[in-house]
Amino acid sequence: MTIAAVTSYDIRFPTSRELDGSDAMNPDPDYSAAYVVLRAEDGSEGHGFTFTIGRGNEVCRAALDALAPMILGQPLDDLGELYRRLTHDSQIRWLGPEKGVMHLAAAALVNAAWDLRAKRAGLPLWALLSSLSPDELVDLVDWRYLTDALTPAAARDLLLSAADQRETRASFLKRHGYPAYTTSAGWLGYPDEKIERLAREAVDAGFQMIKLKVGADLADDVRRLALARAVVGPGIRIAVDANQRWDVPDAIAWTTALAKYDPWWIEEPTSPDDVLGHAAIRRAVHPVRVATGEHVANRVVFKQLLQAGAIDVVQLDACRVAGVNENVAILLLAAAYGKPVCPHAGGVGLCEVVRHFSFFDFVAVSGSLDDRVIEYVDHLHEHFVDPATVVGGRYLAPAAPGFSTQMRPESLARYAYPEGRAWS
Amino acid sequence: MTIAAVTSYDIRFPTSRELDGSDAMNPDPDYSAAYVVLRAEDGSEGHGFTFTIGRGNEVCRAALDALAPMILGQPLDDLGELYRRLTHDSQIRWLGPEKGVMHLAAAALVNAAWDLRAKRAGLPLWALLSSLSPDELVDLVDWRYLTDALTPAAARDLLLSAADQRETRASFLKRHGYPAYTTSAGWLGYPDEKIERLAREAVDAGFQMIKLKVGADLADDVRRLALARAVVGPGIRIAVDANQRWDVPDAIAWTTALAKYDPWWIEEPTSPDDVLGHAAIRRAVHPVRVATGEHVANRVVFKQLLQAGAIDVVQLDACRVAGVNENVAILLLAAAYGKPVCPHAGGVGLCEVVRHFSFFDFVAVSGSLDDRVIEYVDHLHEHFVDPATVVGGRYLAPAAPGFSTQMRPESLARYAYPEGRAWS
Repeated sequence: MTIAAVTSYDIRFPTSRELDGSDAMNPDPDYSAAYVVLRAEDGSEGHGFTFTIGRGNEVCRAALDALAPMILGQPLDDLGELYRRLTHDSQIRWLGPEKGVMHLAAAALVNAAWDLRAKRAGLPLWALLSSLSPDELVDLVDWRYLTDALTPAAARDLLLSAADQRETRASFLKRHGYPAYTTSAGWLGYPDEKIERLAREAVDAGFQMIKLKVGADLADDVRRLALARAVVGPGIRIAVDANQRWDVPDAIAWTTALAKYDPWWIEEPTSPDDVLGHAAIRRAVHPVRVATGEHVANRVVFKQLLQAGAIDVVQLDACRVAGVNENVAILLLAAAYGKPVCPHAGGVGLCEVVRHFSFFDFVAVSGSLDDRVIEYVDHLHEHFVDPATVVGGRYLAPAAPGFSTQMRPESLARYAYPEGRAWS
Repeated sequence: MTIAAVTSYDIRFPTSRELDGSDAMNPDPDYSAAYVVLRAEDGSEGHGFTFTIGRGNEVCRAALDALAPMILGQPLDDLGELYRRLTHDSQIRWLGPEKGVMHLAAAALVNAAWDLRAKRAGLPLWALLSSLSPDELVDLVDWRYLTDALTPAAARDLLLSAADQRETRASFLKRHGYPAYTTSAGWLGYPDEKIERLAREAVDAGFQMIKLKVGADLADDVRRLALARAVVGPGIRIAVDANQRWDVPDAIAWTTALAKYDPWWIEEPTSPDDVLGHAAIRRAVHPVRVATGEHVANRVVFKQLLQAGAIDVVQLDACRVAGVNENVAILLLAAAYGKPVCPHAGGVGLCEVVRHFSFFDFVAVSGSLDDRVIEYVDHLHEHFVDPATVVGGRYLAPAAPGFSTQMRPESLARYAYPEGRAWS
């Protein structure tokens, strides 16, 4: 069975009208998806997307169209090979390598191929991945540039050591779900009263952790964090997120000023490219944890963040790196270095897809839930055929076959940019 | 005076037909340019481009079109502000930040704006930059994420200390030019006899340094390097270039095996994202120098390569980072850390433009020629209005007003992809 057709879409939601999603670097995002449908010869479909925040989504769509010829006619049974075809074309590689627009587009295509494969297998993606042998999982990874930190043989050993308890842990997740935290309370554009109300509602709903955006104004941040801490009490974790706003010295000073309200982690304190900067910040702000990942370009940068002891929390993103395959590499690296993975979600569709990685991580890779939590934002789920469901502060186990990447046809029509009804 | 029109082009040269430019990672490049013309209200033009190697050039053109609205109607007198508009749009920034396709396109636009400004000033770009005060130069830089390594105040001091000898050094360059090295002898696809002949011709032509591509087969590399060393003798420097082919352990083993033929530097031994990997390689292969830069995404990664002591040679690229402004930052960082800048050239048009950076560096930044040399490949210069000229192994000083970025109209027509005559 091979890939017979690739169709791309530019989908945008006019979220900037409400200030949902506002932070110190992204004041007015229009959550968007460069979206792709793969059709196999027998008519079965796989859906995938990469997440953007508006302008430039058309460039990602152009990148999807540029990559489509690489996978047309290719078999669906070796998704390691398919992934490497998308990231190692000798001419296209010049445009990255493995970063930026071309890598975002590769993510959409890789994820669509996995959605197709999981649907054909009749399994949710996390269960499909959890059914693969350690050797099959190791073969999904592009090991180039990783072997100074983790070899394929060491990764296989790590997976083997987690293999015998896979069924027990899968059963646990089906019964109890996976811990979530919510960012919905803390967007930068919200007034204090709204933050207080939403923080209270989050705790009442069962969340053990919330997140606030910081970085625009220190006095505002201190006041908001103090308010939130007063509302939730000392037993609830509050993460803070600066969205790359600071230079290294600013990050240290600002985080230190917030420390008395016991923030659980400082997220994206500086440039996502700055491994050494994160390491310097982490040394200075201990015991506040350092987290990053949603803008980390690829597995090579994650490797270094771990080698340098630069982060406490690995925030993989489903669509920034090249989809399922590269995220398997990142899960393996995190497990090898003993760091928890807490995926970036929010946006549009990210909650739907990243939960598959965390479920797979617990079942087959790290085998641990310690300090692991998936971001949740209650936003735009209605557009998806298999939406994320959070109950009592926990993600329920996805049960539908596929990767939960598929949008409803009526949403694809309404939010098509610029011709859809939402934009006219 | 403001920017009144932005016109983009997809230009490709069918270089893969001859194996010119072949290396271990790029076996069959079609040297290409996503090219842009800015028109001011009075009809004066600035030309700029980003270099690619073929497929995907249309995605860079789409990125140019996506960025064009950011600069239409903007004034030409503050190119620091123009550059920041191109790299800090809150929605577009998501697609990088500051890397990959969007950053390549920003480079083309920034460079076109400088070409326009230099033409209007009646000066070659290097002379225009060398006429700016330290404060004006410092204001061109985006200091975000740099201040842990270099502050604006320290950069100003550095520029001030080089200011009083500017005229003397400019006169020197006009008389004597700037040292070049040639890569034309060593493409991976060439047979031994051709390498020997070209190496001999390079020395006869006055080059003091040549470069060979390595990384596909160790036995071949040892034989080719031995041949080249025998031809040129011990007094000529031979750099070797692996084009990112290796993991860290391979890079160390391979470079060690080549060391007895006294390579001057090993270039791109591994992933351009791998700061810590380059640092490990450099420690292991000393006294062979480590060089990288043509694929380094932005100033933040260059900053870390310098902070970590990961490289001996800074190979800036005119079009990978965001053009003139970001390269001013990289020249300042390199000078602050005492490392020579030896720009990446070859490709199409890169020799024409990078020489302006090296000339400016000597006149106004580092003030030094020690171990500094500009890459030269004798290829595709005939398509440019103000082609690079190398005589006796030295680049002559560019004299025409502008940034030497402008292609001849007949070349733009013939190599337009896919409609130009070269492709039909």
